[in-house]
Amino acid sequence: MAGSCFGKYFTVTTWGESHGRALGAVVDGCPAGLSLCEADIQTYLDRRKPGASRFSTPRREADAVQILSGVFEGRTTGTPISLLVPNTSQRSSDYSEIASYYRPGHADFTYDAKYGFRDYRGGGRSSGRETVGRVAAGAIAARILKELGMELCAYTKAIGPVSADLSRFDKDAILDTPTAMPDRTASEAAERYLSECMARKDSAGGIIECRITGVPAGIGEPVFDKLDARLAAAVMSVGAIKAVEIGNGIAVSSSTGSENNDPFYADETGIHKRTNHAGGILGGISDGDTILLRAHVKPTPSIFREQETAGSDGQNRTVRIKGRHDPVIVPRAVVVVECMAALALLDLVMANTTARMDRLAAFYRGLR
Amino acid sequence: MAGSCFGKYFTVTTWGESHGRALGAVVDGCPAGLSLCEADIQTYLDRRKPGASRFSTPRREADAVQILSGVFEGRTTGTPISLLVPNTSQRSSDYSEIASYYRPGHADFTYDAKYGFRDYRGGGRSSGRETVGRVAAGAIAARILKELGMELCAYTKAIGPVSADLSRFDKDAILDTPTAMPDRTASEAAERYLSECMARKDSAGGIIECRITGVPAGIGEPVFDKLDARLAAAVMSVGAIKAVEIGNGIAVSSSTGSENNDPFYADETGIHKRTNHAGGILGGISDGDTILLRAHVKPTPSIFREQETAGSDGQNRTVRIKGRHDPVIVPRAVVVVECMAALALLDLVMANTTARMDRLAAFYRGLR
Amino acid sequence: MAGSCFGKYFTVTTWGESHGRALGAVVDGCPAGLSLCEADIQTYLDRRKPGASRFSTPRREADAVQILSGVFEGRTTGTPISLLVPNTSQRSSDYSEIASYYRPGHADFTYDAKYGFRDYRGGGRSSGRETVGRVAAGAIAARILKELGMELCAYTKAIGPVSADLSRFDKDAILDTPTAMPDRTASEAAERYLSECMARKDSAGGIIECRITGVPAGIGEPVFDKLDARLAAAVMSVGAIKAVEIGNGIAVSSSTGSENNDPFYADETGIHKRTNHAGGILGGISDGDTILLRAHVKPTPSIFREQETAGSDGQNRTVRIKGRHDPVIVPRAVVVVECMAALALLDLVMANTTARMDRLAAFYRGLR
Amino acid sequence: MAGSCFGKYFTVTTWGESHGRALGAVVDGCPAGLSLCEADIQTYLDRRKPGASRFSTPRREADAVQILSGVFEGRTTGTPISLLVPNTSQRSSDYSEIASYYRPGHADFTYDAKYGFRDYRGGGRSSGRETVGRVAAGAIAARILKELGMELCAYTKAIGPVSADLSRFDKDAILDTPTAMPDRTASEAAERYLSECMARKDSAGGIIECRITGVPAGIGEPVFDKLDARLAAAVMSVGAIKAVEIGNGIAVSSSTGSENNDPFYADETGIHKRTNHAGGILGGISDGDTILLRAHVKPTPSIFREQETAGSDGQNRTVRIKGRHDPVIVPRAVVVVECMAALALLDLVMANTTARMDRLAAFYRGLR
Repeated sequence: MAGSCFGKYFTVTTWGESHGRALGAVVDGCPAGLSLCEADIQTYLDRRKPGASRFSTPRREADAVQILSGVFEGRTTGTPISLLVPNTSQRSSDYSEIASYYRPGHADFTYDAKYGFRDYRGGGRSSGRETVGRVAAGAIAARILKELGMELCAYTKAIGPVSADLSRFDKDAILDTPTAMPDRTASEAAERYLSECMARKDSAGGIIECRITGVPAGIGEPVFDKLDARLAAAVMSVGAIKAVEIGNGIAVSSSTGSENNDPFYADETGIHKRTNHAGGILGGISDGDTILLRAHVKPTPSIFREQETAGSDGQNRTVRIKGRHDPVIVPRAVVVVECMAALALLDLVMANTTARMDRLAAFYRGLR
Repeated sequence: MAGSCFGKYFTVTTWGESHGRALGAVVDGCPAGLSLCEADIQTYLDRRKPGASRFSTPRREADAVQILSGVFEGRTTGTPISLLVPNTSQRSSDYSEIASYYRPGHADFTYDAKYGFRDYRGGGRSSGRETVGRVAAGAIAARILKELGMELCAYTKAIGPVSADLSRFDKDAILDTPTAMPDRTASEAAERYLSECMARKDSAGGIIECRITGVPAGIGEPVFDKLDARLAAAVMSVGAIKAVEIGNGIAVSSSTGSENNDPFYADETGIHKRTNHAGGILGGISDGDTILLRAHVKPTPSIFREQETAGSDGQNRTVRIKGRHDPVIVPRAVVVVECMAALALLDLVMANTTARMDRLAAFYRGLR
Repeated sequence: MAGSCFGKYFTVTTWGESHGRALGAVVDGCPAGLSLCEADIQTYLDRRKPGASRFSTPRREADAVQILSGVFEGRTTGTPISLLVPNTSQRSSDYSEIASYYRPGHADFTYDAKYGFRDYRGGGRSSGRETVGRVAAGAIAARILKELGMELCAYTKAIGPVSADLSRFDKDAILDTPTAMPDRTASEAAERYLSECMARKDSAGGIIECRITGVPAGIGEPVFDKLDARLAAAVMSVGAIKAVEIGNGIAVSSSTGSENNDPFYADETGIHKRTNHAGGILGGISDGDTILLRAHVKPTPSIFREQETAGSDGQNRTVRIKGRHDPVIVPRAVVVVECMAALALLDLVMANTTARMDRLAAFYRGLR
Repeated sequence: MAGSCFGKYFTVTTWGESHGRALGAVVDGCPAGLSLCEADIQTYLDRRKPGASRFSTPRREADAVQILSGVFEGRTTGTPISLLVPNTSQRSSDYSEIASYYRPGHADFTYDAKYGFRDYRGGGRSSGRETVGRVAAGAIAARILKELGMELCAYTKAIGPVSADLSRFDKDAILDTPTAMPDRTASEAAERYLSECMARKDSAGGIIECRITGVPAGIGEPVFDKLDARLAAAVMSVGAIKAVEIGNGIAVSSSTGSENNDPFYADETGIHKRTNHAGGILGGISDGDTILLRAHVKPTPSIFREQETAGSDGQNRTVRIKGRHDPVIVPRAVVVVECMAALALLDLVMANTTARMDRLAAFYRGLR
């Protein structure tokens, strides 16, 4: 139990079910004096909001965040920030049927096995809607990191067989294509692929990539709280993600030392690497280069074709899932990965007590 | 700082440097009454011991573990178990030169960046030798899991381009081939590949796979302490691992829902999945099936050919690394992955407070 | 930062300011299947509600709790329980003046020193109103402990010079006297003393005692998480409490071993102590006897007479505090002490993994 | 379980039994670059070493500390510092008898109740010898605090009925009297009282006071990690301590607001309090004044006169304890209280991320 808190220094506790009264998060450990308003957080929530494209569930939720504590006269007070997002569009009747059987690829069975019963409405806490709390809290983390000169940029790298060509990188496209791809041409191809999936009553997976720039060398704690270990935990904790790569990732296993090593070189600005196979992390500690991670997202398990499964009564049966579901999770999960990476990184930035903390100290000082 | 503790319930703190006086671990939270002696732990340490094959560093270390506390008359007392492994073969002179430059692919640069200086002898705490403490503690975790009916089996899946054929799975081969592959034919091919690498003064990477059987459904805590998230953190925290996959892993991103979903079926023994693309974890909670994870290990960064790099004096230079180094990390890292998976799993087993704890309660009762 | 979470297993995060929109708590780690409704919690909140007697602030707050998550069809789901209590009676204008100076005995100065500025309305987070979240969460803990056979009973032992005579112990009096004393005669004397204090524009302190019965031997973790250490931390973390005693407490320092040792004796029901100077805890572990603790509460620092102080402008001045203040904190703090003791105890009960957990396992099993 | 770690930022894990091979501690989170050698720690260990006076157990232990990791070329590396103190004088035969019965006032019974069996030699982990690890780690904490301008001074305030007169405060006397009292006259009286106790085969309790100077305002985290709550937990976790007071402590319950409030005043150096009833802590946060705490220590439970008790066989019996025991714990516990206060305070200093961290940042910078 007790797995709903993340971070030792910038600690986030999330709560809420898909069809409960509300979802939310409590952020403990935010420095005092930071200017913060609901709009700062809303921008991030809007990126994961349902109903934004034809590839997103038609469920309509305003996902309007309220700040209930920890902010006074427009600035954080250093005390816990309670964030609340009401649920407004609960059509629980869609789900009454699924109380009786286990949807393949979902957590219905494991929640029953663990807890003895479950809130079956929309998957309860195991719903993707649970990420509302992560994004609300992550928006604050990303905001602080930005003040410290660090910026996160996540996007869709691939949907099914269609990959973005990063040589055509177009940052605006991340926000204004329905795929969150930074390449409009690939996005159009991916949209065609998704339409085909939907026509076949099927769904698609994909790859989310996240780049973090401006991270100074020295962030990450050996041995267990390495930057890559914490990023992996943060990202793998998002439902539907089944693999996490850092830098060259899976490619390293078939590489050789002479290919994979990144030579160092010195110039007047300091010491750098000629290549970045390491993805900005050496020995679990940031090396000053761009941090690069990739998450592999499984296809939406809710598909509209008939599937075999078992009922909670222990009988075999076939089912056809109803309700409102995204044919692909990836585009809406992009901001979730970005926010989880922000939470993991900020926590380690605040853990860091070496000379690099000068920058942090200056930041805190500036807040007064 | 403070990243040397792992686990909330079965808590392990490791310490020690490659060329310090000793390495060790303190295990806090081990139940009382478990029969335990040094030989139980030594078996695991012997699997990562250097010098066991021609693909392993010729450094000779007995790696003989001492239990300094927490065991009385052959049984654990419930108090912290202090484990100590002396360092006996420190040829620090090999390393005196590397004090002055940053080895590519190593953490020399990031430790300097973080801490301002470093114990350069053999990489200090960033050495693979740091895993001695993980293995010593993990041996105890694996032992308890076995009493609870859960068994871990890790092995080398691939070295460079050579993959084990799991249809020829031979468990003994894991322990008696120099590659830790469960397929003697592939092992021989991998050995040839490694000899070629060594001849080219180069090194190889590979893939470690770990299967965990006997895990009851219900282990893992939503949201942040999901079983897959904790396994990912545990495994990614091992130096040189750059990607972690659960179940079908990276393959899910190009799959479809109809392919990737595992249909449930019921029989007289309960509810099962027809396939196991999920790798035994749904919604972050074990589903009763085999848990499957894969780790991608980078090639040993210490290669004997000339490399470009920078000195800590800020000058560019070329270097040729000396010392005793494995041409491939994978075979000796197999037991490390197994032990880290054991630590992550046991911690969540002990966190679990649902009806499944009956088995745990019976275990504790049996210890009295 | 990040000091708003309590407990490792039954984890509570509280949030909220005296004059913000709401206060609340998130409980993570509550077992699934427990029947729970708002009325279960309201009973406890009503015991600390303002406005209940003439010795309590005339501020009127319904303190009506809402459960926003973690409960489905009247039972807990095992996921975080979000509890929210709206603030309805914020007369912030009373406080606009105190923005400019530091009230003696309050945290105004230290919050400014720490955070650079503060929510001055009613003390913000440093207000006694912060305990709303503690009580809401503690009510759930007390409920679970009761199911496990453990019961807490806190009461006012003394107010100023007036002590309850426990030989006249009357449990109902705790709830229906304005002093929360279990002795109606003493309560009347204490009321007279409080009236005198009010007439003198002064305030009173007092002693809260808490007895916990039904705790089996074996709860508490050596070395740092001893039951007495965790109880002390829990109780001392309540504002205005300046001393904590266990069992004979301060009297032990002037006692001798022959007086203070509690002899053991055996009978057919097990092993017991003839006396209980130890307060039910030996070596940090419960011994099966009644657990006894006492908390010393300082007099309300808000008094209506003129006081010397300094302004935040660095000028000396005299002030006369306005607003709505209790002349004694003790009666309303009784339930807070009881709830904090419940949170500390339950956390260690859940931490305990010895044979005593049979009772816990049976409880969890019963929930299914 | 898992109660052997203390601190979130400066994390200490202790281990070891009275008659095991060794005792020790692992310190994780110590900043890199601090000059540190074994002598720095030995000074503190010598203050709690047995055999130093006729009021201390005649057991002879060198208590010589070894640093096994985390220090390179005389400076800390930022990695875990493993500290080891061998046990050399184990006369376990003294204890073979106590395997069969429960010593009154000791943890024999509760360890058996909790763990099902126990290391009975000298109390195992429940022995006062367990504090060796606390003192070794606390010495490092006190050292860092001193660099930050904060100094701790603990001493014996009273033994039995004899109190030190602090108007005669003599700091040297703390180290060179057998009572650790800062008043030689009172020390002599206390020595006479102890001789009488010993003649009566009885033991004495006492009071330890600790003053901490130089703590800037702003240390301590609301709500649960208040400075007083953490100090109380730290000190109450030491065996034999049954009450903890902050500032005026128990006296506050019979005081009034007008007496107990400390008026603020401003002068050119800042804002101060005219009195210090609060003991340097307001709202759980340091106020810049001297921090004052008191711990009440029970009389040594091992007395040489005949006592009633029960055997582990469930039979009533009388016992006469043998072995080597202090007639009073207080003088040797003084350094333990000082070290635990240092650990609690340093952890909160490192947790603090407000403007006061400038001093901390400067300290870290100075280490490079």
